[in-house]
Amino acid sequence: MNFNLLSQNSLYKIAIVGAGNVAWHLSIALEKAGHRITEVYSRHLVNAKLLSQQLYEATATNKLDFSNTTANIVIIAVTDNAIAEVVSQLKVPKNTLVVHTSGTQPLEILQGIDAPIGVFYPLQTFTKNKVIDFKYVPLCIETQDQKKIHLLGEIATSLSKEVFVLDSDQRKALHVAAVIACNFTNHLLAIAKEILDDKEMDFEMLYPLIKETMQKAISMPPKEAQTGPAKRNDTKTIEKHIEYLQKYPRYQAIYKEITESILNLK
Amino acid sequence: MNFNLLSQNSLYKIAIVGAGNVAWHLSIALEKAGHRITEVYSRHLVNAKLLSQQLYEATATNKLDFSNTTANIVIIAVTDNAIAEVVSQLKVPKNTLVVHTSGTQPLEILQGIDAPIGVFYPLQTFTKNKVIDFKYVPLCIETQDQKKIHLLGEIATSLSKEVFVLDSDQRKALHVAAVIACNFTNHLLAIAKEILDDKEMDFEMLYPLIKETMQKAISMPPKEAQTGPAKRNDTKTIEKHIEYLQKYPRYQAIYKEITESILNLK
Repeated sequence: MNFNLLSQNSLYKIAIVGAGNVAWHLSIALEKAGHRITEVYSRHLVNAKLLSQQLYEATATNKLDFSNTTANIVIIAVTDNAIAEVVSQLKVPKNTLVVHTSGTQPLEILQGIDAPIGVFYPLQTFTKNKVIDFKYVPLCIETQDQKKIHLLGEIATSLSKEVFVLDSDQRKALHVAAVIACNFTNHLLAIAKEILDDKEMDFEMLYPLIKETMQKAISMPPKEAQTGPAKRNDTKTIEKHIEYLQKYPRYQAIYKEITESILNLK
Repeated sequence: MNFNLLSQNSLYKIAIVGAGNVAWHLSIALEKAGHRITEVYSRHLVNAKLLSQQLYEATATNKLDFSNTTANIVIIAVTDNAIAEVVSQLKVPKNTLVVHTSGTQPLEILQGIDAPIGVFYPLQTFTKNKVIDFKYVPLCIETQDQKKIHLLGEIATSLSKEVFVLDSDQRKALHVAAVIACNFTNHLLAIAKEILDDKEMDFEMLYPLIKETMQKAISMPPKEAQTGPAKRNDTKTIEKHIEYLQKYPRYQAIYKEITESILNLK
């Protein structure tokens, strides 16, 4: 379900738990959209300060007692493994929405918090020094609190044109799909580069084909765009390729699995 | 090695063996570049005629006796499995260059021909009704006949800006790399779409991330652009994903192999 862009977004006060890549990019984007960050938390005060110095009036803290915060929403932007510990220590006013930003963690991981809970998951890879235009970052939101869904929707649509209301099960599927479509395709490209490097060929030779592949995959269903030896059931070529990959056992294993999967397409 | 664009290309007469996708796209592109197709061969005369009708003055034939051809070059554009049979029947004048268009077959497969031999391999997927701009199709050429390398280079540079002189071993590596970088990435995208479809989510949600992935991979070495749970050694997330993929055993196997490969990156 696509969340309709609201005609007039309100401006909110937001507290950020975390000072890593996601916290950093998100805080700055939120202030650019007109919201104000009230507090930045990090276990290490120095990290909280580094981020708060980039913001208008945020206080840096290494305490999770937000009982007196004026924020409308607390965004937990820490690594998955750290969420449970944050939850066990976090104190917030009863009416303050608390959300996490994880693709894999269910909404329920926040259940220990005595306040409305939700999820605010940006579907993008964040790299420290690479600016990301949030306008095209899909934002996936979830909350069972009907009074808070608009607050969450307004903040999301103030950042991005692509806002989706997903449940935890959908978000988990989306994260698996994203890892396969992005992290894994990137690794395949790295393998291709290594194979070319080893024969003193330039990876750039593949750019036209890579671009064509992507353009096709987003202009028609990728299953219909499938080509190659496995699709043609060209077992002779497949055998030659597997033989060629003898010296790369891991890549040979990947070659076999993906070929098998394409051969078995209905 | 990049083949320098020659300042003035000569125009040549070219015979085409085959009437499939590659033969079709190549013949039309060659005539657009000013060359003339003299003959089109297909085992089935009707197919040869269908293609020759698209061309200026080409004769359709189902005989492989080209003893009297006026062509400077014969291009064999048939499937890999059919090359050997063509070679056993083909008759050409002693001075006519004969090339095949396969990514996987070595130059030597043409050895039975009593004439200079070579390879003219376009690195692109050809789909029947999709026009391809040859200008950006990498063309890989090979011949051990020093008198013919210029003929081959001139024809290639008249079609494409990307001409490479590769030996058979390099061409084989390039073909393996292309299958991995293109056919396999496409299959991963198809898997991602299936996972989203099953939870009633739109594949378009992933477009921004797919575009970002590709842009990164061609702006820095893909190995450096690697992100995701395997890169972070985030075993908890990996376990959750593997569990999620229980219902897709083949995709689960692919997930495991690629994750293992990323975990073992040096």
